[in-house]
Amino acid sequence: MKRLLVANRGEIAVRIIRAARDLGFETVAVASDADMEATHARLADTVVNIGPAPATKSYLVPETIVAAARDSGADAVHPGYGFLSERAAFATAVTEAGLTFVGPDAAVIEQMGDKVRARQVAMAAGVPTVPGTTDGVSDVTAAVAAAREIGYPVMLKAAAGGGGRGIRVVADETELMSAFPQASGEAASAFGDGRMYVERFVRSARHVEVQVLGDGSDAIHVFERECSLQRRRQKVVEEAPSPGIDERIRAEMTAAAVRLCKQVGYRSAGTCEFLVDDSSGEFFFIEMNTRIQVEHPVTELITGIDLVAEQLRIAGGEKLGIQQSDVAARGHAIEFRVCAENPDRNFMPGPGRVGHVHLPTGPWVRTDTWLETGTEVSPFYDSLVAKVVIWGHDRATALARSARALSELVVEGVPTTTSLLVELLDQPWFAKGRFDTGTLEQWLTQRA
Amino acid sequence: MKRLLVANRGEIAVRIIRAARDLGFETVAVASDADMEATHARLADTVVNIGPAPATKSYLVPETIVAAARDSGADAVHPGYGFLSERAAFATAVTEAGLTFVGPDAAVIEQMGDKVRARQVAMAAGVPTVPGTTDGVSDVTAAVAAAREIGYPVMLKAAAGGGGRGIRVVADETELMSAFPQASGEAASAFGDGRMYVERFVRSARHVEVQVLGDGSDAIHVFERECSLQRRRQKVVEEAPSPGIDERIRAEMTAAAVRLCKQVGYRSAGTCEFLVDDSSGEFFFIEMNTRIQVEHPVTELITGIDLVAEQLRIAGGEKLGIQQSDVAARGHAIEFRVCAENPDRNFMPGPGRVGHVHLPTGPWVRTDTWLETGTEVSPFYDSLVAKVVIWGHDRATALARSARALSELVVEGVPTTTSLLVELLDQPWFAKGRFDTGTLEQWLTQRA
Repeated sequence: MKRLLVANRGEIAVRIIRAARDLGFETVAVASDADMEATHARLADTVVNIGPAPATKSYLVPETIVAAARDSGADAVHPGYGFLSERAAFATAVTEAGLTFVGPDAAVIEQMGDKVRARQVAMAAGVPTVPGTTDGVSDVTAAVAAAREIGYPVMLKAAAGGGGRGIRVVADETELMSAFPQASGEAASAFGDGRMYVERFVRSARHVEVQVLGDGSDAIHVFERECSLQRRRQKVVEEAPSPGIDERIRAEMTAAAVRLCKQVGYRSAGTCEFLVDDSSGEFFFIEMNTRIQVEHPVTELITGIDLVAEQLRIAGGEKLGIQQSDVAARGHAIEFRVCAENPDRNFMPGPGRVGHVHLPTGPWVRTDTWLETGTEVSPFYDSLVAKVVIWGHDRATALARSARALSELVVEGVPTTTSLLVELLDQPWFAKGRFDTGTLEQWLTQRA
Repeated sequence: MKRLLVANRGEIAVRIIRAARDLGFETVAVASDADMEATHARLADTVVNIGPAPATKSYLVPETIVAAARDSGADAVHPGYGFLSERAAFATAVTEAGLTFVGPDAAVIEQMGDKVRARQVAMAAGVPTVPGTTDGVSDVTAAVAAAREIGYPVMLKAAAGGGGRGIRVVADETELMSAFPQASGEAASAFGDGRMYVERFVRSARHVEVQVLGDGSDAIHVFERECSLQRRRQKVVEEAPSPGIDERIRAEMTAAAVRLCKQVGYRSAGTCEFLVDDSSGEFFFIEMNTRIQVEHPVTELITGIDLVAEQLRIAGGEKLGIQQSDVAARGHAIEFRVCAENPDRNFMPGPGRVGHVHLPTGPWVRTDTWLETGTEVSPFYDSLVAKVVIWGHDRATALARSARALSELVVEGVPTTTSLLVELLDQPWFAKGRFDTGTLEQWLTQRA
């Protein structure tokens, strides 16, 4: 590998170009018509125009990306996150063009992209999944038996369908006995199939994920990230380590993630997402993301490991250069996602040309961005404009520094979520680390 | 302490304001007429105008600073580096005004500011100093006896004078016998006193310094910094750890620095500077700086310890919160000083209003600066405009990232030393860490 095409835009393209340069690679950017002047295009050695602004006509067209790589003399392709990063067919197309795909094998992407297969793999690796029936049950007696094994509260879900139809949460056996016939009847009329899955319902859950690195034969974890603060299933603030799990959960969860990686011979950086039941301390595998995550910097700041550089090394055929015993965490890191949205107008995106930009710099602050004075924020893409990431020797110190760093961020000309993030820092439940996946939305509702 | 006046300007004033904010203090900036729009003035809660641009009429006037502190309701004063930071009389004036001086006691500043007394303290603490005669010798027989004890090569220096007059470096006894009468005669005619100091001449020396923290009773070290790359005795690039010393020297030198601190009951952050003889592995105390250093960030990046915050805590009366056993180094950090000077015109300062500024940000990069698009670089002050500080898990990685980070720095409108720093990265002796205090100037001479 000598010349890397970065099949993405925005802050992650900038991030990947930097890692590639650090390793001595030449870099090729791809840019839509709207992005020809963007930072990632400016930082790369070469830029290839890949067509009109809508991603469906440029960043999301596998053939266009592969052609750009071939035409520009690239020998490897990094997909970043989003766009084509988890499309097995894209990984296959890259490989079939004789190029290196920076990510796991297409077969692993496909396997992990299918929730049922991913769950089967997890179970085979002894990784806990949300307890539930594997097949649908069709009568109340079988449902009661299953629920006794699973433990209450349980959720009833139509085996055949989705969209929330037929879903019931029941607290005990009495409730189950009356709810099952109703739910099953609804499912039968909606999907022509009355069978129901019975699954553990986790009332107060955290979203915690484990970063892993694998080279196909060996695998290690790089600790966990706390990602419970979400709005519409989009993470808003992430941190490492998680303030909500203890050493036992950390040890078991990270070991489970490594087992899962070894089970599939995982090769690249990846993330195993878990749901943690705050009341019982149990954790359950949800899914695996077979790419770099937006929130990877918090892991980098506490461990000193460059996850993107590791992806590139592994893609180049190297074995893992890091032993598990070399991975040590120091301090605490928090990432704030700054989006070009108006938090006081229901997070309406506010694209446009930004005026003066002043980024937080200096001690204990890392700002990953593609924003500069004069950058055009296009309505065609994700509204993430900057990630402000803070390190402290403990969480309280990181939070104090976060207030200072966010106060230094100036982005004129477009609305941003900065003020909301500053407000969040003042919430006692956030300062104490006491929240679950529902907390942020509850707060936003109260605040509105 | 609730309200801190920062008696400085430029990047160090910004650095101190950030630490103060992190600890919850209010901040007062002082600014000359030329600095009223400068970043440090903008970031502070309050700014006090202290007069005309020449520092002798503003930043260097103790009464003006003390009055600004009193009038603005500050209860503490941080002097930064340079300006009044090592003037014992300023520390006394601050204390006598009922304010807290963020630094060691005035008596310690005075003691360490006097080279003869500092040398005596070092000897009393069992810290090696450059071997030499304590008093001047007046005849060649005494000089020969002294040189035999000291070891060749030795340097002859006029006891009464300075400015290089009468200085001779001699390699052996034969040379000494012929050089002494000449040198002594020169000294006699220049200063009316023919007595000479005989001192060890260190041919290939590194400048290595140890960062210390003391609370008046306890003291710890925070490892060393390599500062040999100098031009006209000004450091240009600094790193931690030093690539030029081994574990034995590191252990002995850091222990010596801690002994010295304990000897004087040192209270604050300070730096013990040493000369390391590359050929023999001996090291000798030169002087102690009783303030924060320009190059402190490299220590912060490898240890995670915020040295300015520690200064503030100690000044507030706290005991050292860090045990020596808590101080651990991870990886390697390098600081590049970017100055508004033209390296191709004999480093002529190039003041003026800067145009577009783009600072390196993102992974593994810390930029400490007061520079923004439109900042006026005044001819009245030091030409340092930014410190680009890089971390890597080893030195080679830090160097690779340095090239990338420096290439991202854009400062339009004034000349800077950036291109020279990039060129320096390509020198094999720099990449290998093989240099002494003379190397940079030799290279600059060859290059010119």
